[in-house]
Amino acid sequence: MPHVKVYITLKPTLLDAQGRVVEHALGTLGYSRVHDVRIGKYLSMTVEGDRGAVERDVKEMCERLLANPTIEDYRFEVDE
Amino acid sequence: MPHVKVYITLKPTLLDAQGRVVEHALGTLGYSRVHDVRIGKYLSMTVEGDRGAVERDVKEMCERLLANPTIEDYRFEVDE
Repeated sequence: MPHVKVYITLKPTLLDAQGRVVEHALGTLGYSRVHDVRIGKYLSMTVEGDRGAVERDVKEMCERLLANPTIEDYRFEVDE
Repeated sequence: MPHVKVYITLKPTLLDAQGRVVEHALGTLGYSRVHDVRIGKYLSMTVEGDRGAVERDVKEMCERLLANPTIEDYRFEVDE
């Protein structure tokens, strides 16, 4: 059954407040050489069907539920 | 400057409640062929330093702040 990995990230032009907080926290721990921290979501799932159907379904799922296309980008990989 | 991608996932033996909710929501939208949804975090960042130092720092950052090693696994990739 195809295994799918989905990566959802905030669009690059938008301020990532959560990332800024983590970057600051890393700085206070002494990791001051870390920059441009951005935080997204990673989903893994299995989807029944042939590769074409799975790719079509996952794209739809991202548009409808998993991502917010107004502010987020997504990409996914389908492994047989 | 090396670019780092970090993937943080709940350990496989633990119930992923958020993943179950998403799987149920996908089912109600008609995507009933989706199974084993698991949700994790994806972080991207740049880290100054040579590859060895960056790998050592990122491993430490994961252990100390980014992941909870008791319940989460992490892996990361360093791209030059």
